[in-house]
Amino acid sequence: MGHEVADLPSGPLDEYRRKASFNWKDMLCFIDGEEILQFKQHVFMTLENDPLFARQPGEDMPIEQKRELTFLRAKQLFRYNFLTVEEVIANPWKALILDDCLGMYDWAMVAKFFLNKGMFGITIANSGSSRHRKYVESTEDMTTFGCFALTELSHGSNTRAMRTTATYDPSTQEFVINSPDFEAAKFWVGNLGKTATHAVVFAQLYTPDQVCHGLHSFVVPVRDPKTLLALPGVLVGDMGKKLGQNGLDNGFALFHNVRIPRESLLNRTGDVTPDGRYVTPFKDPNKRFGASLGALSGGRIYISRMALINLKLALTVAIRFSATRRQFGPKDTEEIPVLEYQLQQWRLIPYLAAAYALEHFTKSTFMNFLEFQIGQMMDSSDRQAEMGREVHAIGCSSKPLGSWTAQRGIQECREACGGHGYLAMNRLGDLRDDNDPNCTYEGDNNVLLQQTSNYLLSWLHTKLHDGVRIESPLHTVDFLDDFQRILESRFTTTTLEECMDSKVPLAAYKWLVCFLLEESYKRLEQERALGKNDFEARNNSQVYYCRSLAITYIEHNCLQRFHDVTTDEDTPADLKPVLRKLCALYGLWSLSSHMTTLYQGSYFSGRKPAELVQIAILTLCSQLKDDAVALVDVLAPSDFILNSPIGRADGQLNKNLWSTVMQGSQVLERPSWWKEFCCDKPAVGSLRPKL
Amino acid sequence: MGHEVADLPSGPLDEYRRKASFNWKDMLCFIDGEEILQFKQHVFMTLENDPLFARQPGEDMPIEQKRELTFLRAKQLFRYNFLTVEEVIANPWKALILDDCLGMYDWAMVAKFFLNKGMFGITIANSGSSRHRKYVESTEDMTTFGCFALTELSHGSNTRAMRTTATYDPSTQEFVINSPDFEAAKFWVGNLGKTATHAVVFAQLYTPDQVCHGLHSFVVPVRDPKTLLALPGVLVGDMGKKLGQNGLDNGFALFHNVRIPRESLLNRTGDVTPDGRYVTPFKDPNKRFGASLGALSGGRIYISRMALINLKLALTVAIRFSATRRQFGPKDTEEIPVLEYQLQQWRLIPYLAAAYALEHFTKSTFMNFLEFQIGQMMDSSDRQAEMGREVHAIGCSSKPLGSWTAQRGIQECREACGGHGYLAMNRLGDLRDDNDPNCTYEGDNNVLLQQTSNYLLSWLHTKLHDGVRIESPLHTVDFLDDFQRILESRFTTTTLEECMDSKVPLAAYKWLVCFLLEESYKRLEQERALGKNDFEARNNSQVYYCRSLAITYIEHNCLQRFHDVTTDEDTPADLKPVLRKLCALYGLWSLSSHMTTLYQGSYFSGRKPAELVQIAILTLCSQLKDDAVALVDVLAPSDFILNSPIGRADGQLNKNLWSTVMQGSQVLERPSWWKEFCCDKPAVGSLRPKL
Repeated sequence: MGHEVADLPSGPLDEYRRKASFNWKDMLCFIDGEEILQFKQHVFMTLENDPLFARQPGEDMPIEQKRELTFLRAKQLFRYNFLTVEEVIANPWKALILDDCLGMYDWAMVAKFFLNKGMFGITIANSGSSRHRKYVESTEDMTTFGCFALTELSHGSNTRAMRTTATYDPSTQEFVINSPDFEAAKFWVGNLGKTATHAVVFAQLYTPDQVCHGLHSFVVPVRDPKTLLALPGVLVGDMGKKLGQNGLDNGFALFHNVRIPRESLLNRTGDVTPDGRYVTPFKDPNKRFGASLGALSGGRIYISRMALINLKLALTVAIRFSATRRQFGPKDTEEIPVLEYQLQQWRLIPYLAAAYALEHFTKSTFMNFLEFQIGQMMDSSDRQAEMGREVHAIGCSSKPLGSWTAQRGIQECREACGGHGYLAMNRLGDLRDDNDPNCTYEGDNNVLLQQTSNYLLSWLHTKLHDGVRIESPLHTVDFLDDFQRILESRFTTTTLEECMDSKVPLAAYKWLVCFLLEESYKRLEQERALGKNDFEARNNSQVYYCRSLAITYIEHNCLQRFHDVTTDEDTPADLKPVLRKLCALYGLWSLSSHMTTLYQGSYFSGRKPAELVQIAILTLCSQLKDDAVALVDVLAPSDFILNSPIGRADGQLNKNLWSTVMQGSQVLERPSWWKEFCCDKPAVGSLRPKL
Repeated sequence: MGHEVADLPSGPLDEYRRKASFNWKDMLCFIDGEEILQFKQHVFMTLENDPLFARQPGEDMPIEQKRELTFLRAKQLFRYNFLTVEEVIANPWKALILDDCLGMYDWAMVAKFFLNKGMFGITIANSGSSRHRKYVESTEDMTTFGCFALTELSHGSNTRAMRTTATYDPSTQEFVINSPDFEAAKFWVGNLGKTATHAVVFAQLYTPDQVCHGLHSFVVPVRDPKTLLALPGVLVGDMGKKLGQNGLDNGFALFHNVRIPRESLLNRTGDVTPDGRYVTPFKDPNKRFGASLGALSGGRIYISRMALINLKLALTVAIRFSATRRQFGPKDTEEIPVLEYQLQQWRLIPYLAAAYALEHFTKSTFMNFLEFQIGQMMDSSDRQAEMGREVHAIGCSSKPLGSWTAQRGIQECREACGGHGYLAMNRLGDLRDDNDPNCTYEGDNNVLLQQTSNYLLSWLHTKLHDGVRIESPLHTVDFLDDFQRILESRFTTTTLEECMDSKVPLAAYKWLVCFLLEESYKRLEQERALGKNDFEARNNSQVYYCRSLAITYIEHNCLQRFHDVTTDEDTPADLKPVLRKLCALYGLWSLSSHMTTLYQGSYFSGRKPAELVQIAILTLCSQLKDDAVALVDVLAPSDFILNSPIGRADGQLNKNLWSTVMQGSQVLERPSWWKEFCCDKPAVGSLRPKL
């Protein structure tokens, strides 16, 4: 294995690489496999060899130019066509790997490409019918450039409250799309700012009898594809600068009674006959609404993957930096790498463990989603519906888990690189800024977590009231059936050796989820007993209860999946030791933020348990520090893709930093406005008001 | 009181303002006082009325232009000369208030102005002698534009390891300044990138006998003030884009045997005679080094203030947003402000409490520093030296407290504003980016915390070994003398009512600091008993011990100071109730991140204590939510200064957002590169390698 992978350049990182306990190429092959490795290599090299993708670390580019370049690069991706539809069907995982690779280069470019082909094209394919095939086809060669317009200026989370209307006019067999006022302007729509020609617009459907049939989606042309000028009645524009991902043009649109043909309604879940009658295969409008938004579920699972990719890049930068940056030492004459400090290890290595845990987690949850999607095509059994609920609960909590872990991890990496982490060229700022919206889009993290806790609470309710066994298609909740017994368990570990095993945090997490489930349930009952309605009762049970429940559920699940890998027969024996350490560290470190609850519920008691967990964390960090460089070598893309002087594989920290600084724009030139300094000296106090 | 303060514009925020339990103008007068209020108003209005200070929310400005504008604005500050030297001497607090006001506008501008007049000018005044007076004077009218050059490319924290040399040549009575290689290039120097004409350069001083006398500072001309071109032998340039504060030009300089007159040595702590002998009033070189860096201490105290200012602005934006953004509600037809949700309250209101705690903390620690500085001028007693150590310990931990609280708080505000928080125009990104370096400069937070824990540990050591009473000039450690008794105390609160008093967290913090002090001490002893040297023993005692010790020490101190205000007779009675709630909330919320330790050491036991703390936090948040808008009205600058559409005082969230979007640059125009879309369509797969 591993014969295809090139050696990394020799340099100051050699020492750590030599000390690694495992062969990094074996790990790479274990995680990715030969085919994926070659594919990644191919994508990386293709971008590196194409001058259109050239970039300068830390360059200062106006937004207009950034958008142009992102557009041109997205267009070039059509030409490269890295994956055909057939290839994606043969191995859907490869589509995610392609997004990974392109995202490591620039997420805005991925979004620009994906919002057109994915969100626009796939939504039409899923929600429309044969009459909409032309739109899907025309996105393939960029005749149409699409976007997905759901949220409005005054409504994000509460999608049901959207106020754009689509009123059917049988006299012309058209829908009239209208924004009642600017607060109902479609807002935040990616691609709509500068380039979209068509939008999938979500609007409240009204039939001529004035009856509202709820939110439906329509294909609405917004710009003339020949000129990119706005069509009559459409006020469409750009929202301006964002904190990150500025290559993507997010936009808004106001519709002034724009008329579109009846056939523009995406009619999978409901249609209007030419004479204006509403027809739908669904009887319950809530179900129909659920189904029409169902297409969004996969996105959340992928967002945790996007966040992970950002975390991997940040860790590569910070750990290579820490292994080569020397500061202080036991003697005045000799300085040691900052990675040798306990504090630096504790800041970074748990995030490295989290990245390995999330690597497996995001892959296996994607496979779960795939199983669900394939099932949807042929199966409408109860099991399939149940799997839908479970996948939804996973997606709604995996996005918070991934995006917050990455957000905090990247910030820690930034700070751990000191001042050099604050230089734009080293990319930690861009990673943080580009990751940040993962906490917000496709549902605010805190709002989404409520979906997951609702799911878990409904299981307990069913069990308690109907005596139903808790057992789900993907088995993420099965252990809850045993909750009474689990709640009686206690922390019994007594030695450090014992504690450094992922079984220990795993058992603690099982107790935690059961405890928080029961407490949340009680809390809700209490609130209801006080006469609160369901809305209030739920709102008042979030902090310390439902929210923590959802978080611990998904952390447990992530740990369980990683634990299973480390104990799986098929996992290569020479990789198991390091994977076990990573798994134990991830589990204990995640657990350590819930220790108050463990004490509260008497799972922990006395001084020993927390102390054991803490010493185990520090010991594992210290054991893993010599593996840390090899572990990021496995996660790292090529230097070109990483685009961070202090994170390059050769470890020539100072040389790379210096040479990049020296190649900056106008680095040694005096400023163009130098005369402002040399002439026109200020008269001190000349503008001070005379009293 | 308060008759000078204008009313805020009426609008959707009125409802919350009406519900406030206190008069916000009274609070403003209580915090600032009449004179400061008028001064702030004057500075805000002056900037607002000067077109040079005009700006557009979220505008995209190239760095070169940003730097020019920042320079021009800094120059204009000379003309306004808001405070004369006499005014600062009469009321030094006003100098900080001026920085607050200007910093609320733009920190890069403050830095540009301050690094010249403050860091450069004051360092020369403090470290030089009468022969350097000319430099101080020429900074006054911008003939000289100065900077402070300490850190090098490969050394930041370890300042003693600087490698730039200053070798005295008696034949010409000059120092030869030299950078041995690029790794010793002065790096990160603010103002050096584009504009500095002179630098205070720290270099190892060598006398002709090859003896190194350690780090000294020299005034070195780097650019010709007539042309802004680099002087011979100086390679000086710009480091490029940073994550934030891009109006400031950070730069580097390499010196190739640059000759400067002997008199350029800032000779307060050591001098070289014309014939090349080194003379110093200090016998111990460590003391001399300490004294020469002593000038840095005030900076750290001020950084906590800068961080607080950022937090105040972010909270103003997020709380006004939360009070006007409506999403979901008990009925489908009616939506409620997101501030009504428990979760949103819990995310934001504790930070609001922290801002009030830090407001008083940063003011009173500044007064401590001032007392110390005044003492330095006339007093060289042991008490003065002792106060120096204490001020150092406060400064080294107050910077981490302030900068991290702000960093986390701003991120929470960003997320709490959802997508709109991600729009650059709403300023949360800039606040985060501009605040971020507060964690790093003037010493990395984690490194600085070691200074504080060392200070505390040395007190315990002295007490245990020499029986000395623990008592310090500013009394921040006095309670430690009683540590044996405090360690026996336990959490005895039983009711919610009782728990909502700052006395409860205050007592818990006293126990915490004592516990962590003793544990850290034991841990160090253990490490030493294992044969570790001092360097290793300290490094291995940071996580969970010394680091937590330093953090809890300063949190305790911050809480104590706030608690004293809320119980002070002079605090107006009508403000006390809300201040007490804020103080209790701040204390309990800060404490809640240490609950594991409270359980570990049996200060807490059983389920009740943590539950009481949590319920108290939620109850206080809920009690304070109707005060939240009035509380940020007190902290907020004028709308012009705040520069955030969603944070404007009129609360017209959607109107302000929409109108700012519509006034963006080229918002409705098609992109300049529209033909790239309309022509030259990509041939799908044309660049795909044929297999």
